Amino acid sequence: MSHQATVLNKAAHPFNKANLDALLNRRFFYAPAFEIYGGIAGLYDYGPPGSSLQANIIAEWRRHFIVEEHMLEVDTTIMTPAPVFETSGHVARFADWMVKDVKTGEVLRADHLIEGVLEARLKGDQEARGTQQDPSVVEDKDKKKRKKVKSTAIQLDDRIVAEYESVLAQIDNYTGIELGKLIRKYAILNPDTGNEVDDPVQFNLMFDSSIGPTGKQKGYLRPETAQGHFLNFARLLDFNNGRLPFASAQVGRSFRNEISPRAGLIRVREFTMAEIEHFVDPEDKSHVHFSEVKDVKLRLLPKDVQSSGKTDVVEMTVGESVAKGLVDNETLGYFLGRISLFLIKIEIHTSYGWIECVGCADRSAYDLTVHAKKTGAALVARVALPEPVFTEKEVPTFDKKALGKTFQKDSELVRAFVTDLPEEALVKIKNELASASLSSLILTIERRTLKQSSTKFGNSLPTSSEPSFGIGRILYALLEHSYWAREQDIQRGILSLPAVVAPTKVLIVPLSANDLLLPLVQQISAKFRRAGVFARVDDSSASIGKRYSRNDELGTPYGVTIDFATDLGALCFRERDTTDQRIGKIDEVVAVTTDLVKGAIQWAEACQRLPAYDGVQAVD
Amino acid sequence: MSHQATVLNKAAHPFNKANLDALLNRRFFYAPAFEIYGGIAGLYDYGPPGSSLQANIIAEWRRHFIVEEHMLEVDTTIMTPAPVFETSGHVARFADWMVKDVKTGEVLRADHLIEGVLEARLKGDQEARGTQQDPSVVEDKDKKKRKKVKSTAIQLDDRIVAEYESVLAQIDNYTGIELGKLIRKYAILNPDTGNEVDDPVQFNLMFDSSIGPTGKQKGYLRPETAQGHFLNFARLLDFNNGRLPFASAQVGRSFRNEISPRAGLIRVREFTMAEIEHFVDPEDKSHVHFSEVKDVKLRLLPKDVQSSGKTDVVEMTVGESVAKGLVDNETLGYFLGRISLFLIKIEIHTSYGWIECVGCADRSAYDLTVHAKKTGAALVARVALPEPVFTEKEVPTFDKKALGKTFQKDSELVRAFVTDLPEEALVKIKNELASASLSSLILTIERRTLKQSSTKFGNSLPTSSEPSFGIGRILYALLEHSYWAREQDIQRGILSLPAVVAPTKVLIVPLSANDLLLPLVQQISAKFRRAGVFARVDDSSASIGKRYSRNDELGTPYGVTIDFATDLGALCFRERDTTDQRIGKIDEVVAVTTDLVKGAIQWAEACQRLPAYDGVQAVD
Repeated sequence: MSHQATVLNKAAHPFNKANLDALLNRRFFYAPAFEIYGGIAGLYDYGPPGSSLQANIIAEWRRHFIVEEHMLEVDTTIMTPAPVFETSGHVARFADWMVKDVKTGEVLRADHLIEGVLEARLKGDQEARGTQQDPSVVEDKDKKKRKKVKSTAIQLDDRIVAEYESVLAQIDNYTGIELGKLIRKYAILNPDTGNEVDDPVQFNLMFDSSIGPTGKQKGYLRPETAQGHFLNFARLLDFNNGRLPFASAQVGRSFRNEISPRAGLIRVREFTMAEIEHFVDPEDKSHVHFSEVKDVKLRLLPKDVQSSGKTDVVEMTVGESVAKGLVDNETLGYFLGRISLFLIKIEIHTSYGWIECVGCADRSAYDLTVHAKKTGAALVARVALPEPVFTEKEVPTFDKKALGKTFQKDSELVRAFVTDLPEEALVKIKNELASASLSSLILTIERRTLKQSSTKFGNSLPTSSEPSFGIGRILYALLEHSYWAREQDIQRGILSLPAVVAPTKVLIVPLSANDLLLPLVQQISAKFRRAGVFARVDDSSASIGKRYSRNDELGTPYGVTIDFATDLGALCFRERDTTDQRIGKIDEVVAVTTDLVKGAIQWAEACQRLPAYDGVQAVD
Repeated sequence: MSHQATVLNKAAHPFNKANLDALLNRRFFYAPAFEIYGGIAGLYDYGPPGSSLQANIIAEWRRHFIVEEHMLEVDTTIMTPAPVFETSGHVARFADWMVKDVKTGEVLRADHLIEGVLEARLKGDQEARGTQQDPSVVEDKDKKKRKKVKSTAIQLDDRIVAEYESVLAQIDNYTGIELGKLIRKYAILNPDTGNEVDDPVQFNLMFDSSIGPTGKQKGYLRPETAQGHFLNFARLLDFNNGRLPFASAQVGRSFRNEISPRAGLIRVREFTMAEIEHFVDPEDKSHVHFSEVKDVKLRLLPKDVQSSGKTDVVEMTVGESVAKGLVDNETLGYFLGRISLFLIKIEIHTSYGWIECVGCADRSAYDLTVHAKKTGAALVARVALPEPVFTEKEVPTFDKKALGKTFQKDSELVRAFVTDLPEEALVKIKNELASASLSSLILTIERRTLKQSSTKFGNSLPTSSEPSFGIGRILYALLEHSYWAREQDIQRGILSLPAVVAPTKVLIVPLSANDLLLPLVQQISAKFRRAGVFARVDDSSASIGKRYSRNDELGTPYGVTIDFATDLGALCFRERDTTDQRIGKIDEVVAVTTDLVKGAIQWAEACQRLPAYDGVQAVD
């Protein structure tokens, strides 16, 4: 048996990105969109395995968040009228700084240009000093976003090295003018051409368009789904019977007109995201299910460590992180825990590289406040009080008929004036009414006990925590972590995708195209379909080995081989990662596969139920 | 028992659209997008029940088409560079004619304006003649798209009536100039203002934008997903091991910048569609599974009947319709059958009104041809021949070394020249080589038998049949067909959504907010979750009756009431349409509900397993 060795192999081989990229392209997980038209940077199409994988990740996301936590799903429009993003601040601020190559006119993102050039110089410095960084250490978080700049081995002053490192640590915080100064100060040129670049100019990242035929109604494609949650807040609150906290959730397409995207699925102009807005009382950010995640371990990069340019990660539980203040409150901590559990479930280990797959922002009450102010809509919530509050109050009541007869058209003015009087004034009038018998037919003032069951948030609107998932980035990270190759064939890869997200769960492989096998193929396909397990038949003329290796690349976890022995009731079963072969009766193989796919049993138990196949080695 | 009467009630009550619209808005199935900003015509947001319903319809669509038929799913971008739609013809032709109110500047769609005004005049004529149409007859197919125009009872000349009817029957076929002439001829004014309108101007329905920071790369939002299938044809064919026929499928958002949309979900500017492109040999449009649908009954409106302005529907089977030539070929017939089965499964009866929910076009090879011509990409397919073809041929072989030695840098020229010689010339040389002993070291010519297993389509590219589903329209039709009201409360509605698509399958209703019931609520929720049945708890303070009637409006098919008797193991079960109440042990109620939701049993069997509840009538 060789599979023990093969499994070990997985960890032993260094990750080969070029081979993975070739596999993903060859098997059409995804490919540049409009490829036959020369392609457009930052736009990708998903082929059949990529589409399935994406659909499965989204389905698991829906189960993990929307269904388990009873979130309120919404599906709002992408096209958005300009006033919404003017109010939210996106028109003014959702922008990057760009510079133009003075000769070719090529447009570059200013911060990425500076980063790329300074990092290349630092790398050249290390080469010159002979102190190159260990490539196995945690990578720079922005590595994947930028154009590669070639380094040259030139040693720098120690003072310059320190300056560069300080600039890189703060690169996200510079204004356009500051970026321009850095470019001049460090004589940064376009690395592709060696030309100078001009001053940074702001470029808004929203795609714009025009709604309707008049040309007068400007629209933007949303750069996030969040505004669709905020604008529907009042309706969602009503749907939730007026109670807080609640969470809305949305899976949908968003658009960002990136200046010069060059990093595959990591930085794209159109992407599917999954966003949650958890609306909560700003005075009480505790979470009712916090205890369920408090022992989940997180690896955190504290703010002060990050801004010093370091990447020293600390590991602690959700409970500790909230107690120590690294994570601001229970609600935020709860979502960090739940997100971590989700990523583990679909097997994204966050141990490789630093890509933002999920952002978990505290948006405070900003969005609701600005939209309410702009539109006058009441985006407020009432909370049920734990116990009703009883207050005593002087309450004026009018006899409408008598009031109207006496004051005619001024009746309403009088009524409003009296009603708005302060408590003491009402008491005074009450006493006067009691002492005299003045107007008693019109006005009565009584002391009453009022019951209050809910309260409006005072001046503060509900605040929202926003876990925001980039589905494409999660998908890519998952592919990267799942990829390896067998020692005997390094060119061909295996994607060890977990069954829950694998595009196809079972490959059905008839030994030959012989028509005699067709009824068996159909019978076994039908059994899998009834069991709810997605199976595909590969009856192409390629050899069995080739068909299996094609499906290793597609991440198909299990396979069954149909040959003439199957007719006698014995079905051969193959596991992708180990290439281990087992044998069993048709119904038992289908049952074991179903249990494996649904996560009801592990591989060890499958091996107990299905004996090892010791037949001819023709099958692999 | 009153439920017998209640069920009959459903058919007896005339459909009340205003009440349905109020229900859909109140329960947030969907609502105008950007409502608090005044709304934008043709843009709608889906709330929680609408989102779930949509997701369930799409899931069922995926099962029915993609999974059962092993279609190749793709997920392509919405943002599309201009050259694609220039090639496809959309830039030139995907347009409507619009006219402007000369005084207010209001923009109207020319054909809809003419239709609305002429139909109102015809209606007025019928009122004047006292021959009003029976409202129960099939409605005009465009009724739902347009602005309502009020009719006035004025009798028309018989000649004019005939002219109007002829114009209406051909309204889709007029050019802009012709529409302008009709407006002048019939003195058509803007019905809202009584003002004249100016001449029709073409308005392209694609939203445009600009890709990247240069402002030079124009993009459009796709108005259909189809181009994403065509542009990836070569990759999909390769994924399918080079074999035809195959079908690609895509569910995604598309955009059409409608001139003046006014018909709710029926005509919107942004919508989710599900499209299939079935690529087939143009010489052979038979379908391997045709026999499975040949007995499905279709109601068809033949082309000649339609163009005569009539609406006389004929009913026949798929088999007959293909045999008689009403449906062009088996592949088209197959999809009409499958679509019909899908709509019946989710209970869209096409007996009400005429809305295009699904278009099933034969796109021929148009798209592949124009893209191949424009880009030079090889969008061709090879088909496996039923049996390999063997041909005999003279084949020249060269001794590379000797060839190089003799002809040096001209070697390749010589080789190409000889290889391309016609058969007779090769035979002649072969004979000469045999008779002399000339150059025999360099060149050998042998007669060989060649095996050919596949062939390229001659000059014709594969053609595609395109079933295209408007998910929003299907969703609306489903809601309309599911809606009714009980006699005792006509204001409150019931949505009799089939369980397979209902947003929530089971409502869990604790009798009171008493904490003692909480463990039972959690236990029963967990049982449903484990059974894979989506249940929601309504523990609001509203009365049980109110909670159930709220969920009748949400289309929740089943409910269980938890009270103190449940603690003793008995759970009360309620069916939405009949309000019938049954009782059973907790596990049996969960099992019966699960079977009902999954379609494993019908209501009659559920009644056999769960006896009628004869307790106090407090529950409803």
